[in-house]
Amino acid sequence: MSRPVIALMTDFGLEDFFVPSLKAVILSLNPEARLVDISHSVRSFDIPSASFLLQACFRFFPAGTIFLAVVDPGVGSGRRILVAETERYVFIGPDNGLLAMSLEASAERRVRAVTKKSYFLTDRATMFEGRDRMAPLAGWLSLGVPPDEFGPLVEDYVSLTLPKSCVRSGEIIGHVAYIDKFGNVITDIPAARLPASPARRKPPALSLSVRGKTVTSCRSFYARGSRREPFVLAGSLGLIEIAVREGSAASELGAEVGDVIVLRTDG
Amino acid sequence: MSRPVIALMTDFGLEDFFVPSLKAVILSLNPEARLVDISHSVRSFDIPSASFLLQACFRFFPAGTIFLAVVDPGVGSGRRILVAETERYVFIGPDNGLLAMSLEASAERRVRAVTKKSYFLTDRATMFEGRDRMAPLAGWLSLGVPPDEFGPLVEDYVSLTLPKSCVRSGEIIGHVAYIDKFGNVITDIPAARLPASPARRKPPALSLSVRGKTVTSCRSFYARGSRREPFVLAGSLGLIEIAVREGSAASELGAEVGDVIVLRTDG
Amino acid sequence: MSRPVIALMTDFGLEDFFVPSLKAVILSLNPEARLVDISHSVRSFDIPSASFLLQACFRFFPAGTIFLAVVDPGVGSGRRILVAETERYVFIGPDNGLLAMSLEASAERRVRAVTKKSYFLTDRATMFEGRDRMAPLAGWLSLGVPPDEFGPLVEDYVSLTLPKSCVRSGEIIGHVAYIDKFGNVITDIPAARLPASPARRKPPALSLSVRGKTVTSCRSFYARGSRREPFVLAGSLGLIEIAVREGSAASELGAEVGDVIVLRTDG
Repeated sequence: MSRPVIALMTDFGLEDFFVPSLKAVILSLNPEARLVDISHSVRSFDIPSASFLLQACFRFFPAGTIFLAVVDPGVGSGRRILVAETERYVFIGPDNGLLAMSLEASAERRVRAVTKKSYFLTDRATMFEGRDRMAPLAGWLSLGVPPDEFGPLVEDYVSLTLPKSCVRSGEIIGHVAYIDKFGNVITDIPAARLPASPARRKPPALSLSVRGKTVTSCRSFYARGSRREPFVLAGSLGLIEIAVREGSAASELGAEVGDVIVLRTDG
Repeated sequence: MSRPVIALMTDFGLEDFFVPSLKAVILSLNPEARLVDISHSVRSFDIPSASFLLQACFRFFPAGTIFLAVVDPGVGSGRRILVAETERYVFIGPDNGLLAMSLEASAERRVRAVTKKSYFLTDRATMFEGRDRMAPLAGWLSLGVPPDEFGPLVEDYVSLTLPKSCVRSGEIIGHVAYIDKFGNVITDIPAARLPASPARRKPPALSLSVRGKTVTSCRSFYARGSRREPFVLAGSLGLIEIAVREGSAASELGAEVGDVIVLRTDG
Repeated sequence: MSRPVIALMTDFGLEDFFVPSLKAVILSLNPEARLVDISHSVRSFDIPSASFLLQACFRFFPAGTIFLAVVDPGVGSGRRILVAETERYVFIGPDNGLLAMSLEASAERRVRAVTKKSYFLTDRATMFEGRDRMAPLAGWLSLGVPPDEFGPLVEDYVSLTLPKSCVRSGEIIGHVAYIDKFGNVITDIPAARLPASPARRKPPALSLSVRGKTVTSCRSFYARGSRREPFVLAGSLGLIEIAVREGSAASELGAEVGDVIVLRTDG
């Protein structure tokens, strides 16, 4: 592709010189690159949420998209920089678990640790590896430099050791995976676990517990339900969500990422 | 146009996977689309403010621009999706009044309700119609699919039943239409209602009341006036505004969208 | 260049019609312009921080980039609009010091005050000169109109009279120049002033005072150090910074832009 998409995700915020510096470096190398922001408002250093966010949208991008992800509390510490190819995409980011969920969601992955310093802006130590090392990698990749140019394949890249949802004595045990900006609580329990409605217009019987509170309502979309009453629904990522009509389920429930969810159904 | 502008306005925020998902879907359909953000920081579910915001800037975009607007508390409820053509633009959005002010400001409008599901990402129910239904419409429109392909003309689309400013026994009765990020209070009273200055360097005599407070100063630009003292000026949208020098008139006055404004002039 | 980059910096925020209006005007003039956001979240009317921000990233942009910078408390007051050429770039902005640091960092500069009104959207007074005057200038410049078309060279443009760091009786006296979004305190003291480490793995001996507090630790990257303990490091802009591991040095120290810094070293 002559004008590849480069999609950027960082915790740099939008009020600073960090993000435009990345873009400037990329455009200086490849003026034809098409830059798309995923988000730069990831909570500082929150790798699990950032990993979830990337995983939630990367698959909708065109084949050939290059993802540059920088949430990097270990910048300058010598942790590795990864360039990872999947069947459709290339990912660039620090070796700290940030890319893990996206790579695990891909059928194939070839992960490399970058060792070739000649593609960096500087071969000296730097406090801003996003600008000085990772953005140049994105620029060169977009110009057609193949990933194997940058370093050897590695197997021991960092994974996120997140708990997985499971079934235990008839209950489904899951976790709060993400809280979106509306306050919807996204769990790691597949929506397919929701029982089918026994009859049209009658919601399925279930009970979902989080933080000592129990949700028993199940709705098919956000506009249903009385205000402030949390309810369960099948969300747009194929996962069970807890929502409140035009309000924040996370606030109503006091839920946070990582909280345990217990789902009981009649099914 | 081979590389049309697609301008996006949502209340999705910039910290989440929603906005990049829209962009990814559009670019997957049309890699040449030029994406421009209007805003994604519209207050959640605040349709009047979002409708005002779109109306305040759409006319400056190039002819042929496709506007994709998603502020949609009724997502999933079966409310219709509209594709509306005006003499210069195409608008896509939910049928909830969001497009109303922009359509009313256009000389011609042909509004369609989308019924053709084959252009959607999925024909199943979805909690994320922005990504699964409206973004694909934007992509296909940008590739040249004509609007009449998507559904029939409708007349009964939702309007915003906002009050209009009017003249009553010598007073002009208006409303707070919008509060901008500097705290400037934008009214729905045309700036042409301001009396002409009786003499150069002497401001016109007027009295504007809102929330029981009265503003009698009139300045010709923001840098004038003492700090914290609200004054009236002719704003950049051709509407009367209330401002405070390097401060927030909305905070000083406690003004909110919808508040009644009474303007008395000597003229 | 047929598709020049136009980089935008304003204090307009992302929640309003201001920024999309600028972009719409530019794209209406030059549909091929490539728009890049530097930031629109500059603190309202904070010209020193905005000037620093622009200066911190402009040099990474491709040659030929047009910078449009609007932080403009004096809008409408008749202050001049500048078009400034350097050896690689063109800058557009109000004559209030906003461009000063970037121009001073450039070897050559030819600064013009815009007098030709025929390139504006309107020749009438306007409260939104960004949209009505400066964005059109960016559009026309990107189409190849030469800067000398817009007005005469001027020498008396506004500088920022910021204090400079200096050496006095063995101490280095500097200032807080900027606080980034992580709370890192960026000073105006060149990192070259840091003493070299006397031995590998042993940090140099120094003492830095700000707001009556003293920092004596020196680390080579952010991930070092115990939490909440401020330390000195050589930052990515070639300046001395004070940081806290995964925390805000500015909060820990109560530091603000303009605060005096005193650095003592053994060297």
